[in-house]
Amino acid sequence: MSDREATATPSPAPPAPTGPRPKVTNRGRFTVPIDSSNSDTTDVPEFEYFGVPGPRGRPPLTEYLDIWDVDMMKSPDESNKMDHHTMLYNSDYLIVRRGQEFQVKIAFNRPYKPAEDKIALEFVIGSSPQYSKGTYIPVFPTKDRQSPWEGRITNTSDNVVTMGITPSANCIVGKYHMYVAVATPHGIRRTRRDNSRDLYILFNPWVSADDVFLDNEKEREECVMTEMGIIYHGSHDDVAERDWNYGQFNYGVLDACLYIMDRAEMPITNRGDPIKVTRKASAMLNSRDDDGVLEGNWTGDYTYGVAPTSWTGSTEILLTYARSKTPVCYAQCWVYAAVFNTFLRCLGIPSRVVTNFFSAHDNDGNLKTDIILDENGRIDRNRTRDSIWNYHCWNECYMARPDLPPGFGGWQVVDATPQETSDGMYRCGPASVQAIKHGQICFPFDAPFVFAEVNSDVVFYCRRKDGTMEPVKVNRTHVGRKVLTKTPGDVTRRDITDQYKFSEGSTEERTVLEKAEEFGCKREKSSPVLADVDLVLPNLEVSVGNDFELDLEFINRSNQRCTVEVYISGNVVYYTGVTRSEFLFRNPTVTVGPQKSVKEVVMVESKNYLKYLVEQANLHFIVTGKIKETGQIVTAMKIVALHNPKLIVKVSAEGRVSEEMMATVEFTNPFSFNLEGVYIRMEGPGIMLPKYKYYSLITGGSSLVWTEFFTPQRAGETRVIATLDCPALRQVYGQAPVTINA
Amino acid sequence: MSDREATATPSPAPPAPTGPRPKVTNRGRFTVPIDSSNSDTTDVPEFEYFGVPGPRGRPPLTEYLDIWDVDMMKSPDESNKMDHHTMLYNSDYLIVRRGQEFQVKIAFNRPYKPAEDKIALEFVIGSSPQYSKGTYIPVFPTKDRQSPWEGRITNTSDNVVTMGITPSANCIVGKYHMYVAVATPHGIRRTRRDNSRDLYILFNPWVSADDVFLDNEKEREECVMTEMGIIYHGSHDDVAERDWNYGQFNYGVLDACLYIMDRAEMPITNRGDPIKVTRKASAMLNSRDDDGVLEGNWTGDYTYGVAPTSWTGSTEILLTYARSKTPVCYAQCWVYAAVFNTFLRCLGIPSRVVTNFFSAHDNDGNLKTDIILDENGRIDRNRTRDSIWNYHCWNECYMARPDLPPGFGGWQVVDATPQETSDGMYRCGPASVQAIKHGQICFPFDAPFVFAEVNSDVVFYCRRKDGTMEPVKVNRTHVGRKVLTKTPGDVTRRDITDQYKFSEGSTEERTVLEKAEEFGCKREKSSPVLADVDLVLPNLEVSVGNDFELDLEFINRSNQRCTVEVYISGNVVYYTGVTRSEFLFRNPTVTVGPQKSVKEVVMVESKNYLKYLVEQANLHFIVTGKIKETGQIVTAMKIVALHNPKLIVKVSAEGRVSEEMMATVEFTNPFSFNLEGVYIRMEGPGIMLPKYKYYSLITGGSSLVWTEFFTPQRAGETRVIATLDCPALRQVYGQAPVTINA
Repeated sequence: MSDREATATPSPAPPAPTGPRPKVTNRGRFTVPIDSSNSDTTDVPEFEYFGVPGPRGRPPLTEYLDIWDVDMMKSPDESNKMDHHTMLYNSDYLIVRRGQEFQVKIAFNRPYKPAEDKIALEFVIGSSPQYSKGTYIPVFPTKDRQSPWEGRITNTSDNVVTMGITPSANCIVGKYHMYVAVATPHGIRRTRRDNSRDLYILFNPWVSADDVFLDNEKEREECVMTEMGIIYHGSHDDVAERDWNYGQFNYGVLDACLYIMDRAEMPITNRGDPIKVTRKASAMLNSRDDDGVLEGNWTGDYTYGVAPTSWTGSTEILLTYARSKTPVCYAQCWVYAAVFNTFLRCLGIPSRVVTNFFSAHDNDGNLKTDIILDENGRIDRNRTRDSIWNYHCWNECYMARPDLPPGFGGWQVVDATPQETSDGMYRCGPASVQAIKHGQICFPFDAPFVFAEVNSDVVFYCRRKDGTMEPVKVNRTHVGRKVLTKTPGDVTRRDITDQYKFSEGSTEERTVLEKAEEFGCKREKSSPVLADVDLVLPNLEVSVGNDFELDLEFINRSNQRCTVEVYISGNVVYYTGVTRSEFLFRNPTVTVGPQKSVKEVVMVESKNYLKYLVEQANLHFIVTGKIKETGQIVTAMKIVALHNPKLIVKVSAEGRVSEEMMATVEFTNPFSFNLEGVYIRMEGPGIMLPKYKYYSLITGGSSLVWTEFFTPQRAGETRVIATLDCPALRQVYGQAPVTINA
Repeated sequence: MSDREATATPSPAPPAPTGPRPKVTNRGRFTVPIDSSNSDTTDVPEFEYFGVPGPRGRPPLTEYLDIWDVDMMKSPDESNKMDHHTMLYNSDYLIVRRGQEFQVKIAFNRPYKPAEDKIALEFVIGSSPQYSKGTYIPVFPTKDRQSPWEGRITNTSDNVVTMGITPSANCIVGKYHMYVAVATPHGIRRTRRDNSRDLYILFNPWVSADDVFLDNEKEREECVMTEMGIIYHGSHDDVAERDWNYGQFNYGVLDACLYIMDRAEMPITNRGDPIKVTRKASAMLNSRDDDGVLEGNWTGDYTYGVAPTSWTGSTEILLTYARSKTPVCYAQCWVYAAVFNTFLRCLGIPSRVVTNFFSAHDNDGNLKTDIILDENGRIDRNRTRDSIWNYHCWNECYMARPDLPPGFGGWQVVDATPQETSDGMYRCGPASVQAIKHGQICFPFDAPFVFAEVNSDVVFYCRRKDGTMEPVKVNRTHVGRKVLTKTPGDVTRRDITDQYKFSEGSTEERTVLEKAEEFGCKREKSSPVLADVDLVLPNLEVSVGNDFELDLEFINRSNQRCTVEVYISGNVVYYTGVTRSEFLFRNPTVTVGPQKSVKEVVMVESKNYLKYLVEQANLHFIVTGKIKETGQIVTAMKIVALHNPKLIVKVSAEGRVSEEMMATVEFTNPFSFNLEGVYIRMEGPGIMLPKYKYYSLITGGSSLVWTEFFTPQRAGETRVIATLDCPALRQVYGQAPVTINA
């Protein structure tokens, strides 16, 4: 039949069925859904018969060896948790580390006969356990039956057998269920599912076979076992400290960390690989793309959440996320880094928070940060777009890199702060610190981006009337001025700049930069002649609210008189280097005789900057100018991080485990103006969970005292830390050390 | 004052303001929002005065050199589009390629005086043009004023000046606006914004300075200039072809491709880098994460969209996405690859679609695909979870890799099909084909994953009663059996397997696999002894609806009699290797004398498989068994891709540009059953835009004829291609060549 006869309806097709489109399923694409949740489980059958039923139906499996009881030996003082360095976890379950033996006790209905009794411990993780995927692991007490996890009988006393199990050193990290199986002629018989026999298996920095092995007890103590941290900020020549309670052992934190991977739908089979775990987490710690843990906010308006400067630790954030299942408000770089650090230490991956002073950002892996001046040498704010962060915090985690050639294992940079411009990259790392130091940035992950953060040049351009621009000064030492982290086992800072860069001006340094250029990093080639006049700004330590003098020193190295038309711009800036507002401008003309130097004094009054201050009271002075005689450009920049008032924290001297103690926080409003909407937060590792108190008003000059009672859970040296935060005054800190006796 | 006196309210804090949380802004984080849209623009001011107004206010700028007209010389027959190989684009604008000179004519109010007149052509892209970011580029007619883009006067006749502009070979690719600026003593004066002077600048494979330079005219013709493509599918020993109209030159397609990058919020400054553009696009072509272009669907139910098998080309898909701004339904791997190919060719990046037969998938970069048999050697479907795709399509694009050591430029794998298990990777590549061939998979991006797709081993495990498993057979040649792409300038297929792998069994091959293992790819170590009995399945070419015989040949290489208990399983499978349902099962016992061979014939009847058929009529036969005497396991697998009926396409022999012609599509339903809800689609590059027709019913055995009239737009060899698609019968194709004379 022809077209006419066919039941043809005119194009276009009939309307598609209305209503919401059904979710597309996995059918046709996967045999089973990807197993990507540690909380989903399937129970293994209690009886598993062999073959088809006989003529007389299935025989009962009950008359064989029977299991009466299983003891996971999970109390903190038992060998398991001590041997595996997991005694500090506040948890109801057994927690052990992979690649190392742990013990369980099994009580039978009669003495166990190694010769005839065939038993196995079965470990299961996820919803579709498979032997070949490492999500179902049977462990046998005898050598003759092989399995990736070793098993042996370590002790037998009448009906009770103690069995030692050694998980493989690369097994999946997470929460397992355990069954005891007995093989009978007719089939396999298992213990009923019993949650109390669940156990967590973590990464193990103490075992050389584990990719996260760290062969240094002092660093392991710091980077895995220590809850109390110090994060550095401020400016490289006036470093400030921020205490942080990582709280990786607090109740519920480990489950929250596993939930983060579940929420990321990370395949279970990837969770034994520290590279994949850390990369995934770097994406998941921020809310971009994936409704991750923390929502970033740099605006200064935190009405709808907690100010980034107000947090005292990670516990509150992680537990809130696991409970609410929505991003927690708000974070800035050190909050991302601190919570990431908790995640890593909690799972057993050695990690530390580092601070890079003058971090080149949002410049997309180029080695240039541009500052544009007009023809008179005054900064052109509309055309100056790149930002140099006063400081930026990220994490280092310690692991082997089997995916790379030898030499790139060890410390790896991971960064959870969302970086906007790097090809939509809301994850960063792991990038080998060794690779960055040697400019070998051709290896994954995101090494060029991190390299730029510590190696960019600051280029001052002079913009001509016709729109073209000429580089007039290149500062090759400003960015990545200093990289700091906490000293293991001490409260002092440790300068690790040399782990990222060779010393300034060394031949290695030049080679490394050339190497990086081979791999596509763009640098400023030109090196403009130095101006005859040097401009030096002083180092200053100033408390917020004080007036101070800024002395500009002009040093004329030439043999002729120089007249400099100077533009002095004082700005309140965010720690991201972004300007909030210019509060000071001077335009003096300075004349310096040949080989002479002249001081120009600028008076900075608090009344001018106070009203603009944003959370991190940073003042940024940019001084630029043009030498009339030569047309040369002089420039200088200085960050002044104002010192905030302190909180006074006091704790009743000595303490004992389980005996109530008292902590007080005292604060005096040093200003003439009132502080409104004030939060004070307090907590202490092992002694006090996060607490906070709200004060609607603290009038100018007035004081307050907040007293809290608490009961230490464990012995040792620790600290009570506190913050005060309100829109008009942020990052006010205080802390007091305390010793708890057993 | 003390705590009591302070205006303290009990914790917790007062309720946060209700209502929806305001979107967090960029304030404090960026000086300006990231410039990530090519469609956003800011107009450059018409007058830009120098310095502050004088005492008598601003002088008029009107008495100076004036621009009367600008001619972009954009008609297809003018030199610009011919020289730049952009004459085929159906567009109202000038389209040129970077690193190569193009011409514009400027008419002034009087003859141009090179000595005194200061003019510049200004090119601007995005919403915050900056000289230092390459988004604002002034171009000067004289050498003395520098700029990254070269300019020169190529012709002057009285008031009219022809200027040649050479964009830098690494400039941003996208849509620019152009202004003509005249410098006067008082300021700069510009032409008013005029959209007709907008121009597109594309990648340039014809220029050696461009990273996408491809030094082979024949390949450039194919991989940049050719719209008509062939995509291979079926099975490696019975390859099928699918025609595809990439349509990269169709009206609106270029804008749609730029919209994709805008939608991805890809920073403008990244859009000159082919590595970043292709990586970003591989993420954006699928709807995962980012509401990208195409939604995947493998279920067989396409009620709410167009069946992946029904598309005839990319045009309809790209234009629909750009219009609706929501993902287009539905795609499978070849649709992703085909539309990605359009995107790449349209922007000027050389690219081709390749097909890998037996592609190892969803196994997360491991070099193992597991098939689990029970103790009797019968396949255990519940425990066999990995899938081997019968075939998988991805793209190769050609570019230098400055981010890697020398030797890894050239063809790069990019894949837009979302891969579920690879650490949540919904993007893939660019991965250097050279790096994959040599096992150098330590370099970005995603090389280990691609390496596994062509190099995995198929491991047959025998599962013991106690849950442990023993590898009984390892097939190291099954996966990545053949890689095909279209021959440049021809309609034949080209086998490029040797570009991905060294020849089987060669020493290089072994070295490469060891190298890959060094970088963490896990392989099956054991090599079980070969069974004494070989099992061989025949190559078959079968048409849908036919019964056929499957001959199993058992060859006994031993000197003893072998009795094989055989399990023959016939399954309808999706092209992803996932089983729809088992339609045939036999369990014969075959006895083969020493050094003898025996044939076992299995009758396959269409009535058994027809009712289960899914879109790509693939039958998968798995034959496994155990040799009673030795306990050895024998296995064999075979994919039979059933041949579908054809569409008959006829076109009136010769054609002329702009003269109407006629095409007819004929189809006869070869089955006894009715076909319902039938779509027929038809299109042809340069002659016919996509058309379709809907038939609600085509009764068994009946025929239809669909006639369409069309008017060719350009001369040359081309084809009319057509598809027929309905739930009961998919991927029915037809095509007819046609020559259009000028």
